[in-house]
This record gives sequence, structure tokens and C-alpha cells, in this order.
Amino acid sequence: MTRKKKAPPKGEGASKGSAKAIEELHEIAGQIYAQLSDGQIPKMVLPLRTKANIRFDTRAEVWKYGALKGARTAKKLRGALMLLRTMYILEFIKDMIDQSKSSTLREMYYISEGWDLAKFHSQDESNLLAEDLEVITQLIREDFKLRPEESGASVIGNLTIEEVTRNGERRRINCRDDIGDAGYTIPYNVEKEKIKFLETDAKFVLAIETGGMFDRLVENGFDEEANCVLVHLKGQPSRATRRFVRRLNEEMKLPCAVFVDGDPWSFRIHASIAFGAIKTAHISEYLATPTAEFVGITASDILNYELPTDALTPRDIGALHAELTDPRFADEFWRHEIQTMLEINKKAEQQALAKYGLDYVTDRYLPEKLGEIGLMRG
Amino acid sequence: MTRKKKAPPKGEGASKGSAKAIEELHEIAGQIYAQLSDGQIPKMVLPLRTKANIRFDTRAEVWKYGALKGARTAKKLRGALMLLRTMYILEFIKDMIDQSKSSTLREMYYISEGWDLAKFHSQDESNLLAEDLEVITQLIREDFKLRPEESGASVIGNLTIEEVTRNGERRRINCRDDIGDAGYTIPYNVEKEKIKFLETDAKFVLAIETGGMFDRLVENGFDEEANCVLVHLKGQPSRATRRFVRRLNEEMKLPCAVFVDGDPWSFRIHASIAFGAIKTAHISEYLATPTAEFVGITASDILNYELPTDALTPRDIGALHAELTDPRFADEFWRHEIQTMLEINKKAEQQALAKYGLDYVTDRYLPEKLGEIGLMRG
Repeated sequence: MTRKKKAPPKGEGASKGSAKAIEELHEIAGQIYAQLSDGQIPKMVLPLRTKANIRFDTRAEVWKYGALKGARTAKKLRGALMLLRTMYILEFIKDMIDQSKSSTLREMYYISEGWDLAKFHSQDESNLLAEDLEVITQLIREDFKLRPEESGASVIGNLTIEEVTRNGERRRINCRDDIGDAGYTIPYNVEKEKIKFLETDAKFVLAIETGGMFDRLVENGFDEEANCVLVHLKGQPSRATRRFVRRLNEEMKLPCAVFVDGDPWSFRIHASIAFGAIKTAHISEYLATPTAEFVGITASDILNYELPTDALTPRDIGALHAELTDPRFADEFWRHEIQTMLEINKKAEQQALAKYGLDYVTDRYLPEKLGEIGLMRG
Repeated sequence: MTRKKKAPPKGEGASKGSAKAIEELHEIAGQIYAQLSDGQIPKMVLPLRTKANIRFDTRAEVWKYGALKGARTAKKLRGALMLLRTMYILEFIKDMIDQSKSSTLREMYYISEGWDLAKFHSQDESNLLAEDLEVITQLIREDFKLRPEESGASVIGNLTIEEVTRNGERRRINCRDDIGDAGYTIPYNVEKEKIKFLETDAKFVLAIETGGMFDRLVENGFDEEANCVLVHLKGQPSRATRRFVRRLNEEMKLPCAVFVDGDPWSFRIHASIAFGAIKTAHISEYLATPTAEFVGITASDILNYELPTDALTPRDIGALHAELTDPRFADEFWRHEIQTMLEINKKAEQQALAKYGLDYVTDRYLPEKLGEIGLMRG
């Protein structure tokens, strides 16, 4: 009872990513094999993935892993098991590529039930290994047909894309005229073999943290008013969402502005878009949009716009202090805003602008903030 | 800088809901006014909204509030403030209806910053009042132009709908052929003035808890294989999602099957669809689909399919015991499954079926479970 798929046109069956992935997987297996047949205890060497080991790549203008390395060796039981799992995963991924399948990270965790000793004991272990494969091969998870549970973000605006559907059809979709008011949903794979950007007359992308604010801007017609593409981040944005924004920036030359709450967690949402996230620093040049500008609520906005606030919690204060030692926030703007937030001991949500009425955000706040950075006549 | 809307055709500007809403709001204000001018201390009487006060409505076949009532009187400060807030809200809602606007519950909370003494101190207070208005008027929140933050669920299947967009256009969308692989997203308002169901050849609706499983069924082409409409619930389903499923059941005569994890929280997800949720029992006949069948993971499935499991947590055990005293679960099937789950002390996720491979769920599990209830040849 397997599904009859339309056969993809010859030569397009596997994306470039998949062909490259199989090659890289063979390479890894080959290295382990070579070490074993040389009588060595096998090991894999990979960069340390910590805040201490991210450095600014001036060419790509994003934060990436530095030179610090760690080794995973079969000398210890834990390391040996991880190498064994790596071998099972290589086979699993190869099978999926051969069968044009993909799997969630959660499914891979359950699949390992059949791997005997190599079975994962938690999903953290399997997620970590999937990321390791990216770091080692310089490919991305999508090339390995692994995907997260995260549901995609929504897009509204005059942007026409072409999506290759599960049946292999090329479908042209305008993200304003062909979809419902809830928007076009970004699929989990947004690489070029899946999504092409065809045309847009928008001048910039506005990435928005909360659903309430996204719906407000949609209802107020801000995409048409300001001639922009609205992207709902749904909190901490998924990789697909960050990649989508990066590609819009790179290929359609659209500047990006990030409109989030005014609290340390939302600063990190901005950082993951503009600077690259620490967990995915090995693929920052795929995911980050270095020129993205922050138009979210700042500590200064809390004071200037007299916004309704909540007091910082101890967790908020800890997160702000951590940001003061985060190299990604080491500039004058961020130091000032983080320190001011700590001093006033207050945070505010983007929806707090509703204090002045439902239209204030589109009539006053965004024109002012976007005007400052030249994206709107203020 | 307000948006130029296409004027809606005469006579369709306000939905029936809106006209009725204004009438009902006047009625509430009138009653308070009458009590005051009679020299009485004003009060509002409404049903108690607790598990103890839900009863089965045999006509509508859903659980609704019973006869127990509580009064909110201005004798006490808290009651007086709630009445004052009610008056402000009535005015706010009337303004929104006049201006064809809507607002999130969060925005309403912030709007109250301008209401002086009547300002809400937490969003729980404002949400409660919004629900009270529904209970009193027998209308729904959507008629009052209030909506939640929740993002809508996704739909994939051969179902053609017509959505009236924010510009007043009628847009015809097929939920399989006109959208991307991430599906059609259910908007926050799915009432008849917004969404019409035009046609479908599907035989039933399959409502799915997790995104990973939804994507699995989409990738495996289960909507075409089993001729059904797939609806991703995104965990505890939003009101819009439940209403969408109810309308598909009622208007398109599609039976509904609910496919969720095997744990007490997922049993409640099923209950909110099939029986009506306790918090929204006043509108169960709008939201619930009484004939919905459970095809999620049961304690028996855990044993029969030898699924990977986790141990129940103390919170899980507490929730299962609460369900044993919940009138909605008071039948033989549920008592047996809940008691078995307590005995084996195990729960399992729907993605645990991946233990047997990525196709097991569509090749074996679902055909068996759906076969038992006559929705598929097993």
C-alpha cells in the first residue's frame, strides 16, 4: 500500500544536496573503516559547539565556529556507541535518499529501537548526532532528509514563489493573492530544489515574533501600505524560516527588519536571524541575514513610548547578563539597550503598543522605526 | 494612514453575528442601567463553569453547562470592577464592529490600560470576561471580533473552500491542489461569512495531533490513499480548528477520526473535539463533533503493537485519575483504557509507530484502526 508517486523527470530525482550527501556519508564511513583496518581505535574530530568557540567570519559577516576541536573516540564506551550509531544513521539516511523519503528527528529516534546496542536513550542524543553530521560534512540536515517537528511560519505579501509539491508538480503561488488570510505556510524544506522565488515588488521583509501582531499587521493591510513581505516567526524561528528570510535577502535583494518583543529572549530571536544562532553556527551563512535590522521593542522604546511593562524575572536578568558576555551583542547599541533594560528592570511585549489603540503600531510606531533605517518614509 | 478597504457589498458589511452581537450588548447594558435606575445594586447572573456543572445535552449530543448559577454583584469591590470592565468592553466591541476591526484577547488586555480603574490586572481576567459575554449572550467570541493568539491548524486533502479575504474578495482554494505541501492554514475566524465549503470527494476527516505525524501522512500520500482530509490539530486544538472540523462533519457529512498520542493529555484533546471542552461547554454545539471516533494510541495498542513507551509521570497519573471522575469519559471503553494505562504505567507517542519503519503507520496501523470503525478497508 505504498503511494504511487509521479516519477520525477530524469536527472532531477536526487537534488544536488542528496548526491553530495551520499558522497559525504561514504567518506565518513570510509574514514572509520580505514582507521579500523590500520589497527587504530577509530575517532571523529569535530569543532566544539559552545559560546566560547564562535568567532566572526568577516567574509560571510556571520558568527561561525572557531578552531577549538573535540574528539569522539571509541576508547570510551560512550564514544564507541556514538560511532556505532553514526554508522546506523548513515545507512538509514542512504535508504531514505534512495526511496525519496524524509523523516522527522523524532521518527529517527524511534527507528533506532531496532538498532540494538546503538539505540538512542533520548532524543537529545539523536538530535546532537544529526547536527554533528552537518558540522562534519558542511552539508545541512535537509540534505540528509532529516527534519524537525517545528511547524512552519506564515508569509503574507506580494511575493510569487514556485513550490515543487510532493507529487513533483511545480506550483506557482502568490503569497497575497492565492492564499487565505492566514498566509502561505513555509514548508520544512525551503532549499532551491523545493522553493524558487519568482517575483516581488516588495521593498523589504518584516519578520514578526507573535501571531497577534502578525494578524494585526495583516488586518491593517501593512504589507500593502508599506510594500513589504510579512513573515510570522512563531517565536524562536525554525531553520526553514531563517533560511527563507536569508534567501529573500540574498536572491531578491530585500532588506530585513525584525519586529519582536522587548525582552532578552526576543533579543536572541533577533540574534538568530541577524548574527546566526550558537547551536547552528556551522551553517550561519545559510541561515543568518547579517544586514537584518532590529525594529523590536527596546528599553529606550519602553521609556519613550511609555509602554505597559512587566518586571524582569530572575531568569530574564540572568539572560540579559549572559548577553552582555555574548560576542554577538558586543556593540554599543546592544550594550546600551541591555544595560538600560537591567536598570529600569522592565520588559514589554510588542502588543503593548495597543495601549494607544489598534492602529498605533501601523500609524505611528513602525513608520517611525522603519523610517529611521530608511525602509519607510517616517 | 489607515488602509483603503474595498467596500463590502451593501447588506453584507456586518455579518448576522455582528448585528446580533450589538443587539445583545445593548441588552446587557440596558439591564445594568435598569437595575441602577431602580435603585438596585447591579449584578449579572451566569452559569458556574466547572466540571461539577457540565451535563450531557441529549439533543445536541454534547456536554454543556447545567443549572448551577453564580452572581457577579457590585456589592463587592471585585464584582463592581468586573461590571465596570464589562461596560468598557461593550463599548470597545461596538467600536470594532462599526469599524470592521478585530482584536486579539491580548490587545484587549492592553487596550484596558486606558480604562483607569477598570484596567485588567492580568490577561486571565480579560479572557474570563470575554467568555462570560459568550455565556450570557449565547453568541461566540468571533461575533464580538475577539480572537486568540493561537495560530491555525493546517489542512491537506481534496476539499475546496471559499474564503472571503480581508479585502472582501471571494477566493476559491482547493486544500490539495492550490497550496504548498505545508497545507492550507485555518484562519482564526471560520464562520460561514468567512469560510464556505464548496466540494469534496473525501470520505472522512482525520485529525492528527503532532506535526511530525501530519507530515508523515502527507509524505506517504495518505490523504489520497484513504481518500480523507488531514487536519493537523497542533496539540490542543484551537476553537477555529474544532469549529472547522465540526462544520465539515455537519455540512459535508464527513465522519471524523482523531489520531493522537497515547497519554492522558491526548485523551483530553480527543474529548475537546468529540465531547466538548469544559471551558467552552457553553458553545459545545458549535465546536464539538459528537460522532468523532478515537483512533489514537490506546493502552491496548501499547501492548498489542509492543510500542516504545515512557513511564507515566506523577502529573500523568493525576490526570488519568481526574479523567476517571470526568463524566465525559464515563463509558466502558474509556474506563478500561484509562485503568489499563494506570496498570501498565506507560504512555506512548503516535510517532513511536516508526519503530517498525516510516510506512508502518499508513500500511498497517491506520488501516487496522480505521477498518474497525468502517472508514477504511482494513
